[in-house]
Amino acid sequence: MAKIAPLSGFPEWLPAGRIVEQEVLDTLRKTFELHAFSSIETRAVEPVERLLSKGETSKEIYLLRRLQAGDAPDKDELGLHFDLTVPLARYVLENAGHLDFPFRRYQIQKVWRGERPQDGRFREFIQADVDVVGQDTLAFHHEVELPLVMVDALSKLPIPRVRIHASNRKVAQGFYEAIGIDDVEQTLRIVDKLDKVGPEIVAELLERDVNATSDQARLTLELAQICTEDASFADKIASFGLHSDLLDEGLNELVALVEGANSLIPGSVVADLKIARGLDYYTGSVYESVMEGHEDLGSVCSGGRYDSLVSDGKRTFPGVGLSIGVSRILARVIGQNVVTPSRKVPTAVLVAVNDESERAHAEKTAFELRKRGIATEVSPSSAKFGKQIRYADRRGIPYVWFSTEEGEQVKDIRSGEQSDTTTLTWQPPAEDLHPTLIAGE
Amino acid sequence: MAKIAPLSGFPEWLPAGRIVEQEVLDTLRKTFELHAFSSIETRAVEPVERLLSKGETSKEIYLLRRLQAGDAPDKDELGLHFDLTVPLARYVLENAGHLDFPFRRYQIQKVWRGERPQDGRFREFIQADVDVVGQDTLAFHHEVELPLVMVDALSKLPIPRVRIHASNRKVAQGFYEAIGIDDVEQTLRIVDKLDKVGPEIVAELLERDVNATSDQARLTLELAQICTEDASFADKIASFGLHSDLLDEGLNELVALVEGANSLIPGSVVADLKIARGLDYYTGSVYESVMEGHEDLGSVCSGGRYDSLVSDGKRTFPGVGLSIGVSRILARVIGQNVVTPSRKVPTAVLVAVNDESERAHAEKTAFELRKRGIATEVSPSSAKFGKQIRYADRRGIPYVWFSTEEGEQVKDIRSGEQSDTTTLTWQPPAEDLHPTLIAGE
Repeated sequence: MAKIAPLSGFPEWLPAGRIVEQEVLDTLRKTFELHAFSSIETRAVEPVERLLSKGETSKEIYLLRRLQAGDAPDKDELGLHFDLTVPLARYVLENAGHLDFPFRRYQIQKVWRGERPQDGRFREFIQADVDVVGQDTLAFHHEVELPLVMVDALSKLPIPRVRIHASNRKVAQGFYEAIGIDDVEQTLRIVDKLDKVGPEIVAELLERDVNATSDQARLTLELAQICTEDASFADKIASFGLHSDLLDEGLNELVALVEGANSLIPGSVVADLKIARGLDYYTGSVYESVMEGHEDLGSVCSGGRYDSLVSDGKRTFPGVGLSIGVSRILARVIGQNVVTPSRKVPTAVLVAVNDESERAHAEKTAFELRKRGIATEVSPSSAKFGKQIRYADRRGIPYVWFSTEEGEQVKDIRSGEQSDTTTLTWQPPAEDLHPTLIAGE
Repeated sequence: MAKIAPLSGFPEWLPAGRIVEQEVLDTLRKTFELHAFSSIETRAVEPVERLLSKGETSKEIYLLRRLQAGDAPDKDELGLHFDLTVPLARYVLENAGHLDFPFRRYQIQKVWRGERPQDGRFREFIQADVDVVGQDTLAFHHEVELPLVMVDALSKLPIPRVRIHASNRKVAQGFYEAIGIDDVEQTLRIVDKLDKVGPEIVAELLERDVNATSDQARLTLELAQICTEDASFADKIASFGLHSDLLDEGLNELVALVEGANSLIPGSVVADLKIARGLDYYTGSVYESVMEGHEDLGSVCSGGRYDSLVSDGKRTFPGVGLSIGVSRILARVIGQNVVTPSRKVPTAVLVAVNDESERAHAEKTAFELRKRGIATEVSPSSAKFGKQIRYADRRGIPYVWFSTEEGEQVKDIRSGEQSDTTTLTWQPPAEDLHPTLIAGE
């Protein structure tokens, strides 16, 4: 058998890292629920034809085959989902008759892509998505609401600040059309590369791939370089002197987004006209975001407004949503010890065992403490007490409990303080009850 | 594109069912942590050769292939894990130098099997496992501890009572050898079918497949039919008058398990000598369990002691663990409405919007309430208040909040009671803060 070794692109954590991951996932979940989003969880697989019909199909998909199926392909070929948007679209269509619209859902799950692994890019990773999906119509104000849900959630994590950078598809499309560029989708895909390849290459690609004149390329780059913390971007765009109803509509929306969001959470959303998003299904606001000091990771939270992603031909379900790349953030904060847990185990108390004949009594003690919400383990051996205390110390368990003929005693092994107590009354300080997260240097 | 339809064997819940699922998973996790087990999460995939080397390899495995890989197979072929035991074995070997032994881990994850779906059998399902893994040695008392962790966890779920039925491999092996049956593994596999096929077929299979005489088959069945709530099974086995050191060792262990477990949690563990478990890696205690009134589901929590599952040739890591078939239980309690949530959404308060110009103020109100832990949604439309109240009512949201020129008011839409309040002081009763579970009829 092959040597045991990690699989590149499939991150796993030791128990201490998992405590950080759980705390992050709990915080996201709790915040999404405070914002009145319902959880759903979809199966890991979708029919391949559905995976290929929408979204980022340039991504490598993992197909499934049953070991004992032989060479004959399955009737309905299945693949692992590569995001949570395609499954949401299918779930909404499948269950539309049972859902209340606008449907507010969050979803925190693993997704899989067969890409070449690199820093911040995995083959298996966790995404955390929130979307609001309407039936037939969806009010614009959700495009202001949704990025704020993410800013609220991300601000509660023990990570550097994350700001949302937003633009609007209508602005880009209206602008391109007004300056005479026809192939809007291809232009967006080229502008989307700006941060990676720089303005010269973008200008070359525009001239080569969408037949842009050098003036059109210059104007496109000038738009992409506008980035303001308030609504002043609108004046800069007005100074181009272009006239387009679509452009005006997009500008009004982007002003409403930046002003509305920043009045509720100051500094939360920046107007950044280079934000293009490669996906062709966005129709209004588009969002990306970077973690301060970790710009090299790329966007850690992205999304936008879509109008025709979900349709069964009769009804359409417009929506707006964002997705956090949880594993990308975690790989950085766990991998670089930006955050560590106060201890490696959930345990608050180790009940010492003086002699194997007293193990049953120790187990009763542990049950009493657990009933009161205190995570408790009984010492696996009845070795000398010094050895049992070292067992606790190695794991970061703060308290060791002793039952003697005189009664019960509890020792804080950090301070060495030991005192009489009972299982019915003893309570550790709140900060010792569960592992807590500590920001590293 | 194919019609949208559920995929057989891949269960998904509506948001109300998902609330039940989350509550069940939260309770399991919380109980496992109270018992001082650390969470780990392993990748969904393992090398195929590893999946095939251990455990239930008769199960259908899903193999992975990258869509763009072409016909050339990947160098390291991967498959989806079909349980959480094979991944644990690999994780322990891979990380042994970083783990503290005995290593107490729990793991709640989806697993996949390409089996033909049927009631209680899925292709994608959630398992919840606890194991204690030692390095080189592992004390017997963990074989008493582990089933009690599961009984404690299951007793906190809103489901019918679950009891553990236990036997011991040493008893079976010692007994079979003492009566002259050589092929112990095959005998165990045949006895494992007793509940499904009945004693006559088991006797036939024993005579056919392990060359048992009719006397040997009769004795094997007599052993399998012993089932007692206390240690009296040992007297019944003693009455066979067999002599075997292994049998005696197994009987001592099974007596210690039944007496030890029932002294801590009365009625938790039954000695049931027909429990065989098909897996060949078990070496001591073996466990199964049924949910009362739902015996047709089969075992919902199973496991045992293993001594050589995990080894790298130099070191061995003996362990004991049990696994709950969470999806099997959930399909019954959600599918048959044994349990329903008090409301379909996390939302406690809907903030009404009198006019779109007042939406920003409503959003501020919602942020204030969320800061105090109250899940709050702003009405998506500024329709007439009656319509907004119906919006809340349809989702089970208990409170609607009004901002007027006179101040703030909150209405309990169940009682119709409406009163003055402020975002800084108002607190719903604890039972309204989050959805709660209600046992159905």
